[in-house]
Amino acid sequence: MNYEFPAEWREGVYQAIVQRRDIRHFLPDAVPTEKLAKILKAGHHSASVGFMQPWDFIIIEDVEVRRKVKAHVEAERLIAAEGFDGERREKYLAYKLEGILEAPINICVTCDRERTGGKVLGRNTIRDTDVYSTAGAVQNMWLAARAEGIGVGWVSILQPEFLNNLLGLPENVTPVAYLCVGYAKEFPERPVLETTGWLPRLSLEKIVHSNRWGAPSPQKLADELRQDRIPHKDFKNG
Amino acid sequence: MNYEFPAEWREGVYQAIVQRRDIRHFLPDAVPTEKLAKILKAGHHSASVGFMQPWDFIIIEDVEVRRKVKAHVEAERLIAAEGFDGERREKYLAYKLEGILEAPINICVTCDRERTGGKVLGRNTIRDTDVYSTAGAVQNMWLAARAEGIGVGWVSILQPEFLNNLLGLPENVTPVAYLCVGYAKEFPERPVLETTGWLPRLSLEKIVHSNRWGAPSPQKLADELRQDRIPHKDFKNG
Repeated sequence: MNYEFPAEWREGVYQAIVQRRDIRHFLPDAVPTEKLAKILKAGHHSASVGFMQPWDFIIIEDVEVRRKVKAHVEAERLIAAEGFDGERREKYLAYKLEGILEAPINICVTCDRERTGGKVLGRNTIRDTDVYSTAGAVQNMWLAARAEGIGVGWVSILQPEFLNNLLGLPENVTPVAYLCVGYAKEFPERPVLETTGWLPRLSLEKIVHSNRWGAPSPQKLADELRQDRIPHKDFKNG
Repeated sequence: MNYEFPAEWREGVYQAIVQRRDIRHFLPDAVPTEKLAKILKAGHHSASVGFMQPWDFIIIEDVEVRRKVKAHVEAERLIAAEGFDGERREKYLAYKLEGILEAPINICVTCDRERTGGKVLGRNTIRDTDVYSTAGAVQNMWLAARAEGIGVGWVSILQPEFLNNLLGLPENVTPVAYLCVGYAKEFPERPVLETTGWLPRLSLEKIVHSNRWGAPSPQKLADELRQDRIPHKDFKNG
């Protein structure tokens, strides 16, 4: 039996992957409830260690709550700037890193470390596999959102304790991602940190190893990996 | 500008999400190099905190290496069984949890915590965001593989130190995922741990909150979430 998807479905998967961007510029338009629901279902359909489904989704529309998040992120952003020197600090401070207030919706995705009790099938050696599962669910949401024409920006400059207090999270629940969600002004072809020269894109060939760290790939695979960009494909709507 | 994908592309994204399974039964057929390369590119095109791209991919085909992994996992599986009582232990031990030797390829996906030096844009408050990025890359690979008709099983019952030694990982590099990759015997409609009653599927409506933990969703969203399964859609190949 051939389980390969038809060509257009496959294209959709790859285009969602390659056209997904971290969005910080949003339009004020509301996200239709049906689209929001589909994005949440995409997250909930993700894999989880021991079928634990450790995620919860807190949908934040309340402007007062978002103002507090924005103020906290702004303070942490300035603290972080101290870690960079000179030109690098200027550059860091010039980036727009989030759209907490511009986006109509924020979503905090959390991980309940004790959702199914202390013993979880498959979590015996690496305790954080439940958090990895939650990060995977976020990726599903991000790709589904891209397919729907909705932008997602992941804001990581937050103290977990701040969100614990603000959102009233129970003791065993950890915030994993804080997302801004809304119609994107645009989906740039490449990440902003790439186009503005913050860091270069790595060569895929150099980070694929054969059987052991540092051993190069067989020639045929190395040749395939050298052309490491998935081409963008334009599309027509409607 | 409407950035929504055309209907068939969108369907592809949702069907990859809903038809993705954790695969433990593999056919011996080799994975074509082009397909493997596409799966790796899908991972490399994922988002990363501060454009850090902290991932490496170690492709393990060597049977001797995989035998060692298998023996280690088997030992850890038996240790983990001690954590379950009576009937639950029997059930746990009856599950086939991996296809390390049956699958033609294993892939260890790692996270280099120091890839771009100690200061990473966006990693100042949550040190593990680089590991979250790596988990997101794994999700991209999993979905791309599903689109290609290739199964992926994530084996989590491993001690990281074991992989560090076996694969010669540098000091700052942490294994995040150990994947079995190959043609799947089948893609079951639901997770095995769901159909065999290990744990129930959670109601999405109950794990979506409004503005604060424990506050229910507005009626319209709650209605949408109550029907929380994304329907499977059959397809024809060729």
